[in-house]
Amino acid sequence: MGVVASLPPAALPGETPVRVDDAEDALSTLVTLVGADLEACNRAIIARMDSPVALIPQLAAHIVAAGGKRLRPLLTLAAARMCGYQGARHVHLAACVEFIHTATLLHDDVVDESLLRRGLASANAVFGNKASVLVGDFLFARSFQLMVEDGSLKVLDILSRAAATIAEGEVLQLVIQNDLSTSEDQYLDVIKGKTAALFAAACQVGAVVSDRPAEEEQALAEYGMNLGIAFQLVDDALDYAADQQTLGKTVGDDFREGKITLPVLTAFAAGDVAGQAFWRRTIEASEQTDADLDEAMRLIERHDGIAVTLARATEFAANAKRSLTVFADSPLRRCLAAVADFTVSRAR
Amino acid sequence: MGVVASLPPAALPGETPVRVDDAEDALSTLVTLVGADLEACNRAIIARMDSPVALIPQLAAHIVAAGGKRLRPLLTLAAARMCGYQGARHVHLAACVEFIHTATLLHDDVVDESLLRRGLASANAVFGNKASVLVGDFLFARSFQLMVEDGSLKVLDILSRAAATIAEGEVLQLVIQNDLSTSEDQYLDVIKGKTAALFAAACQVGAVVSDRPAEEEQALAEYGMNLGIAFQLVDDALDYAADQQTLGKTVGDDFREGKITLPVLTAFAAGDVAGQAFWRRTIEASEQTDADLDEAMRLIERHDGIAVTLARATEFAANAKRSLTVFADSPLRRCLAAVADFTVSRAR
Repeated sequence: MGVVASLPPAALPGETPVRVDDAEDALSTLVTLVGADLEACNRAIIARMDSPVALIPQLAAHIVAAGGKRLRPLLTLAAARMCGYQGARHVHLAACVEFIHTATLLHDDVVDESLLRRGLASANAVFGNKASVLVGDFLFARSFQLMVEDGSLKVLDILSRAAATIAEGEVLQLVIQNDLSTSEDQYLDVIKGKTAALFAAACQVGAVVSDRPAEEEQALAEYGMNLGIAFQLVDDALDYAADQQTLGKTVGDDFREGKITLPVLTAFAAGDVAGQAFWRRTIEASEQTDADLDEAMRLIERHDGIAVTLARATEFAANAKRSLTVFADSPLRRCLAAVADFTVSRAR
Repeated sequence: MGVVASLPPAALPGETPVRVDDAEDALSTLVTLVGADLEACNRAIIARMDSPVALIPQLAAHIVAAGGKRLRPLLTLAAARMCGYQGARHVHLAACVEFIHTATLLHDDVVDESLLRRGLASANAVFGNKASVLVGDFLFARSFQLMVEDGSLKVLDILSRAAATIAEGEVLQLVIQNDLSTSEDQYLDVIKGKTAALFAAACQVGAVVSDRPAEEEQALAEYGMNLGIAFQLVDDALDYAADQQTLGKTVGDDFREGKITLPVLTAFAAGDVAGQAFWRRTIEASEQTDADLDEAMRLIERHDGIAVTLARATEFAANAKRSLTVFADSPLRRCLAAVADFTVSRAR
C-alpha cells in the first residue's frame, strides 16, 4: 500500500494534468480533479445555508468554514465525474451530503459535549447547545429541500435511508457506551451506521445522477461503505495515537467518553487481570484519573491495539479499491483508489 | 364563538353519525369522524418507528404513546377526507406529520431542559438528552423515508419546507429570548414558524393527496396556518393561567425560561416603572425568586395580558374558519370550523 502509480497527464476536459506520486497526495489530487465542481459546491453550500434568521448562517458558517476536508461531497463529485456525468446536479447533491454531515456533526458535538472540532472551538462551545441542535435540524431540513429541488425520488430514497441509518448508528453507539462486552461485530455496526452509510450514499448518488447501471451504482455504494469503515477505524486508532498532530481533535476524547472502539476491545480481550480491571474501572465505571490516558495508550500499545485496528482498516480499504474494478481505468478511478490508501496511510 | 350548529346525522360512508353541540366537543368529534383513519395512522406510527436498535422504539413509544392529541395528523386525515379523498396515502402522510412533530418535541425538550411533557416525565428526563437528540433525528429521517415511499415530490416539498421553517422559528425564539424589545410581529414570526407552519403543511397535504385545485390547497394551508397561530397564542396564554389543569405542562415554564410571549409583551408595554423593572429583572436578566411567578401572573392579569392574547387568538381562529368557506358544507368542514373555536375555548 501507500504508493500509487502516477496518473496520466489529462484528467477531465479543461482540468490541469495531475500526478499522484503517493497516497499522501490523494486528497489534494481529488480536489484538483474536481476543483471547479468543488468550488461550485462550496458556493451552493454558502448560498443555501442562508436564512432570514441571521444566527443560522452565522453558526453554520462556523462549522462549514472550519476547514473540513469536504471528503463526502468530494466523493459525490468524483463518483459522478468518473461515471461520465456532464451536468450540474451532482454539485447540489454534494451540498446535500455536506449538509447532512454538518447536521450530524452539530448534534454529535452536543451529544459528546465536545468543546473542540477540528482544533477550533466547537459550535456548541461558541453558540450553545440549543442553537447547535436547532441549526442542525435546519441544515437537515434544508438538505431535503435541495433534494426535492433536484427532483429525484431515488436520490431522496438513498439519502433519507442514510440519514435514518446514521441516527441508528449513533443511538447504538450510545447503547454500547461503557460496555466492554461489546463484540467487534456490534462495534462495526456502529461505525457502518454513524460513518460509512453516508460515505456509501455520497458515492452511490454519483452513479444515480449519471444514470449508470445497477452494478456500477452498487459498486460505488460498496466503495463508499468500505472506505467509510476504514476511515472510522483509523479515526478510532488515532484517538489513542501519541504523536498525531494532524487530527485537529484532542487525543483521548473517546477514552474520556467511554467509547467502545477496536483499540480498546483489542487491549481488553488480550489483557491480564490487572489490565482488564483497568478497563473496567476507566471505561465501564467511568472512573478516570489524569494518568489513566497514558496507561490506556500503554496497554493498547502493548497489545497491538493500534496495529490490529489499522490492519482491519487496510482490509476495508482493499475492499473499497476492489469495488472500483467494474469501472474503466481513469484518472478519477485511480485517484479514488489512492484515497482508500490515504485513508489508512494518514495514520502511519 | 363557542357554540357550533349540530352536525347532520351522517358523516362519511360507514361512520357513526355524530353531533357537535359545542366547540368543546370538536376534537372528539374529529376523532369520531376520521376514527378508522386515525387508528390506521396510529398503527403506521407504531410500525414505522421500529428499529433493530431497541432504544429507538422504546424512547419513541414514550413520547408517541404519552397521550398526545394527534392534532396534526388528525388535520391531515380530516383535510383529505373533506376533499373527498378515498385512498390510503393520507394515513401514511399523517404519520409523517406526527413524526416531524415528535422529533421537534424531543429536541424542544432538550433545548428547554424540560422535565415534563404532557404531565409525564419528558423523554430527556427518562432517557437523557443524548438519546433524545438522536431519536429525534431518527424520526425526522424516517418521516422523509415515508414520504419517499409515498412518492409525491409535492408533498416532500411542502413538508421539507415546513421542517426548515420550524427550525427557523425555533432559532428565532432562541434569539429573542429574554429580549423585551421584541415586537409583536417578531413574536408572531416565531409562532408561525415553530408551530403554525406544520399545522399549515399538515392541512395542505390533505388537499394535495386529493388532487384538489390550487385554491382549495391554499385555503387548507391558510386554515392550518391561522389555526396554528391561534393554538400557540392560547398555549402561551395558558402558561400564565392560574387555574389550568388540562395543559399537562407546568405553569410558568415560559416565565422561567425567559420566553417572550404576548402576555408578557402586553404587560411590559402597559407597565409602570416598577412593573417594567420587574420584567427587566426576571425576563431580561433572568433573576427570579420563588415569588416572582405569582407577581408575573398578577401583572399580566392587571394589564389584561391573557385577555389580549386570547382576543388575538380569536381573530386568527376566525380567519381559519373563513378559509374553509371555499369548501362545500359537510360534517368535516363544520367540525374543522369547530376545532378552530375549540382551540380558543379550551382556555376559557
